Amino acid sequence: MTLPEGYKIRRIEKKDYEGVVETLAVLTTVGNLTREQFESIVDYWNSVQMYHDKSIYKYNPSVIVDVNTDEVAAVGNIILEQKLIHEGGICGHIEDIAVSKNHQGKKLGKALLGYLSDLGFQSGCYKIILDCNEKNVKFYEKCGYSTTAIEMQKRK
Amino acid sequence: MTLPEGYKIRRIEKKDYEGVVETLAVLTTVGNLTREQFESIVDYWNSVQMYHDKSIYKYNPSVIVDVNTDEVAAVGNIILEQKLIHEGGICGHIEDIAVSKNHQGKKLGKALLGYLSDLGFQSGCYKIILDCNEKNVKFYEKCGYSTTAIEMQKRK
Ligand SMILES: CC(=O)N[C@@H]1[C@@H](O)[C@H](O)[C@@H](COP(=O)(O)O)O[C@@H]1O
Ligand SMILES: CC(=O)N[C@@H]1[C@@H](O)[C@H](O)[C@@H](COP(=O)(O)O)O[C@@H]1O
Repeated sequence: MTLPEGYKIRRIEKKDYEGVVETLAVLTTVGNLTREQFESIVDYWNSVQMYHDKSIYKYNPSVIVDVNTDEVAAVGNIILEQKLIHEGGICGHIEDIAVSKNHQGKKLGKALLGYLSDLGFQSGCYKIILDCNEKNVKFYEKCGYSTTAIEMQKRK
Repeated sequence: MTLPEGYKIRRIEKKDYEGVVETLAVLTTVGNLTREQFESIVDYWNSVQMYHDKSIYKYNPSVIVDVNTDEVAAVGNIILEQKLIHEGGICGHIEDIAVSKNHQGKKLGKALLGYLSDLGFQSGCYKIILDCNEKNVKFYEKCGYSTTAIEMQKRK
């Protein structure tokens, strides 16, 4: 995983509220998420650990930030799911990937995917999955992913 | 959700080891999952609660069993994911659905899907998603799901 100069990658912190909300709005509806709600979700995410190994987080919300200004340039998460299949295997779910409008065209999305995938495999995943629109398939192929099945949904 | 006569639905228990392992083998590789591993994953699943509401489990492993013999006829799970998007929304992930060879053709799959979907929406999900093969799309459509996107994967 190589990050362009001037950027670093780290776990989400409470101070990232505005940048994360703004960046996620590129992906979908964020709605009226207050700073208080954001902070308490970050606390919750930091509190949930994986089966047996207390150094492995179930939620791994991550940001790429500008090294100088700490501005959020990209955001994403990998959620680790403890299964029974594959001898009690772990499946990683990559979720909520977004690159800020101000930082596009710098391959930050690819760097973030590489980071989250490495994190998942280091944490013991036998596979990592994600769902995306037809139009993003090419991008995820460049990140080493391949089409495997159909995503279906039910909404309230 | 209506269950055919002679069956009931409940959370997985430790005594379900053999029946669950046998039933999951219909779906995919289970491998050499020992009774000890099974029991400790069940304990782990029972210990992880959702954000704020301590009565909501993050993992909801469920079985349909024969009311008389307690034999496992079907198994499935819904994992609740705490997000930031959609005002701190919850997304339900339906996973590892399998119906035992001895109990097929009784609409147990549909009953299980109904149960897990109800559980997800009652727990606050704004949407519930699942991934499946092309050949199962028709079945999930009958359960109220519709095709929405592409699943991609990366394996070790
Ligand atoms: C790889 C990736 O980032 N996929 C995202 C998914 O994580 C996100 O939850 C969803 C939001 O869509 P929604 O607002 O319709 O739920 O969009 C995309 O499928
Ligand atoms: C709705 C449903 O039950 N989908 C399952 C998924 O939950 C399971 O994890 C996977 C196992 O496949 P694998 O053995 O290739 O990981 O198969 C199917 O996609």
